[in-house]
Amino acid sequence: MTTWWCEHAWLPDIGVADAVLIEAVDGSIVAISQDVATPSDATRLRGLVLPGLANAHSHAFHRALRGRVQQGPRDFWAWRDVMYDFAARLDPDSYYALARAVYAEMALAGITCVGEFHYLHHAPGGVRYDNPNAMGEALIRAAADVGIRLTLLDTCYLAGGFGQPLEGTQLRFGDGSADAWSARVAEIANYDSMRVGAAIHSVRAVPVPEAEVVAAAAKRGGWPLHMHLSEQPAENEQCLELHDRTPTQVLADVGALTATSTAVHATHLTGTDIALLSETGCGVCLCPTTERDLADGIGPAGTLASQGVRLSLGSDSHAVIDLLEEARAMEMHERLATNRRARFEASTLLRAATVDGNRALGWQDAGAISVGMRADLMAIDLESVRTAGAGATLETALFAATAADVTDVVVDGRHVVRDRRHLLVDDVPRELATSIGAVLS
Amino acid sequence: MTTWWCEHAWLPDIGVADAVLIEAVDGSIVAISQDVATPSDATRLRGLVLPGLANAHSHAFHRALRGRVQQGPRDFWAWRDVMYDFAARLDPDSYYALARAVYAEMALAGITCVGEFHYLHHAPGGVRYDNPNAMGEALIRAAADVGIRLTLLDTCYLAGGFGQPLEGTQLRFGDGSADAWSARVAEIANYDSMRVGAAIHSVRAVPVPEAEVVAAAAKRGGWPLHMHLSEQPAENEQCLELHDRTPTQVLADVGALTATSTAVHATHLTGTDIALLSETGCGVCLCPTTERDLADGIGPAGTLASQGVRLSLGSDSHAVIDLLEEARAMEMHERLATNRRARFEASTLLRAATVDGNRALGWQDAGAISVGMRADLMAIDLESVRTAGAGATLETALFAATAADVTDVVVDGRHVVRDRRHLLVDDVPRELATSIGAVLS
Repeated sequence: MTTWWCEHAWLPDIGVADAVLIEAVDGSIVAISQDVATPSDATRLRGLVLPGLANAHSHAFHRALRGRVQQGPRDFWAWRDVMYDFAARLDPDSYYALARAVYAEMALAGITCVGEFHYLHHAPGGVRYDNPNAMGEALIRAAADVGIRLTLLDTCYLAGGFGQPLEGTQLRFGDGSADAWSARVAEIANYDSMRVGAAIHSVRAVPVPEAEVVAAAAKRGGWPLHMHLSEQPAENEQCLELHDRTPTQVLADVGALTATSTAVHATHLTGTDIALLSETGCGVCLCPTTERDLADGIGPAGTLASQGVRLSLGSDSHAVIDLLEEARAMEMHERLATNRRARFEASTLLRAATVDGNRALGWQDAGAISVGMRADLMAIDLESVRTAGAGATLETALFAATAADVTDVVVDGRHVVRDRRHLLVDDVPRELATSIGAVLS
Repeated sequence: MTTWWCEHAWLPDIGVADAVLIEAVDGSIVAISQDVATPSDATRLRGLVLPGLANAHSHAFHRALRGRVQQGPRDFWAWRDVMYDFAARLDPDSYYALARAVYAEMALAGITCVGEFHYLHHAPGGVRYDNPNAMGEALIRAAADVGIRLTLLDTCYLAGGFGQPLEGTQLRFGDGSADAWSARVAEIANYDSMRVGAAIHSVRAVPVPEAEVVAAAAKRGGWPLHMHLSEQPAENEQCLELHDRTPTQVLADVGALTATSTAVHATHLTGTDIALLSETGCGVCLCPTTERDLADGIGPAGTLASQGVRLSLGSDSHAVIDLLEEARAMEMHERLATNRRARFEASTLLRAATVDGNRALGWQDAGAISVGMRADLMAIDLESVRTAGAGATLETALFAATAADVTDVVVDGRHVVRDRRHLLVDDVPRELATSIGAVLS
């Protein structure tokens, strides 16, 4: 039995409760009591305790681009070239070191579960490593070693664009066929606290018949299935030209949109696209800080939500790793697009960052502080210069706090961050600097 | 002589320089040397040292609304009612305590100079305090006591809307006439490190003949003149109906747009408006985090800049106090509006947050690390979890760092923040909580 006593905690159907005792056995919550006066032998968590955050869309190696891609590349496609240049340099050892540091940064920000949209599979030129899953397993070890859960969204990536072969760095992404992709994924070692998911990189990178194979494999394996969707208008235009259908329609037609699927970005949609997502139960993962960084535009989050589409959040390119900022930006971008305030309830924003993010990654039993759920917790400092005086409310956590205000993080009942220090990684900034420097040098 | 040795510093026309020795006498920089190996007896500043930030638009008491106005008010006008409810409760003592805490929060965020757009002049009902500048002088003392420079933009506010009398809390704002406003402002005590400026609250709150008096007074006094401009479409519509001119045209016609004027927000402008701002030399202060919070929309920052309009930045309603985030948002909002990246050079963003902000507040000799300028410095931690590995660049400071990464702040040669601790205010979060709590209780 592990117990935590929380000064304040956000409980489903209740809201902010005071003096909350949470008890867990084998990483799952077995009892919750309110107004418990004495901490007893429980670990004391000050501030406001929320469920741990789920980062539903990550490309770990993009963290190396932070601060390096703000002046040069003037559009998404030019930015992608710089990103490819960095991807070209990674190998399983250097990717392990980098991902370990990045996942540790996520833990410090309150993230307890990450979905890694992983397509950097092979050695330069597309040469197979001795273990063809060496890169994916580097990511798996990295997450395990820093104590956060991982869904490895192993990504099928077969074409350099509509009707175009892979070239350059892209050769590292390709398995040759969806069947070869599927055979490789079947060999991924299983670890505790991780699971496999599938991904169709995009309609431009996976031809229609192959996308159908991936969707079928995901269904067969019971895997969550993710896909980039309509992040850039150019992709929509090319897809319409080739297929006479939008990317959403193409993906619906191959059976990729289901209740266990998640479309990432979904920025440039038609009304029919939105209806398709709603009808199929496919969720949408918004990545607002990346979408503004890459000048993607503001997606129709409000309309999607009003049509019942589940929303989750991801830090994607890691221009910023702060899921609180992603949640805030989900609301703020909607305000900018509609000229109206208070578009989403704070509890809706939290749901996207927690329970629906976990669900998008295949963890149905995580994302809320309630009995039977995994003991994923994060504590927000209510006495920082940012949060002081704002009150012990969810609004303070989501609109005033930043990742710098996360003091404690518990993943599956294990204390991973305490008083803003990672308990498994001595010096996260140093590991970030060293691992990025090693690859750039 | 005071000296600082900077690991890295941003110098005009040079960029990031290493091992920089800065020497100051009486708060002004007298010498700068690069590649100085030994710190000698200088104060050592690690990380990247930038000029201190200028917060060109502040309403200090709005800080009390942080976290409290996210769910209820659905538009700007409903939000304003909540803001008035809080304003109604303040008196000179409670406002001193609150402003002192808020300005200390600013200092911790690297802000060395603030422009306070001050209209809460009188007691409830509009009754004069024994000292009719008691509220303004509370702000002056607050800034002096936490060691940052202040421009008190004393604001003329005479009407509750076009053709409407002041009512309710607004009675506290009113001087009765621009002449009475001018007579009161003439009595404001002068302190070191502060200066007086003037403000026309807006075209809805100051009738045309009175606005002309304020503009003339500002010109006579050599004061900077600020004004809210076209933050909300409703104001534009009402102004057009009454005056058959846009707010920009009305302000131009009363002589309020000059090279020492600053229009705040300037969100909803016509092409003619932009040309007027450009021709007159009037600057524009953007408040991006407030503009998204209040669902104002995205203003034409790129067009303004391309027409030579000087831009500055303000945290305004203090939903966030982080000028680095304002600078980043200036760029990000432009990306969202144009679907293109790299709209502003990093040095342009810094200029808005430093030299042009200071200039908008009447301090021509501040905002750059160069000989003859005030010794306003801030150091950014390059080894935090957010900045590690991103490099010692201005892009790291503006696109990766947050206010939480500011370690040291020097104002006019005086060390005010060291190792993230305010040297004049023991416990800034406690002062925030206490001062806000006292007013709310």
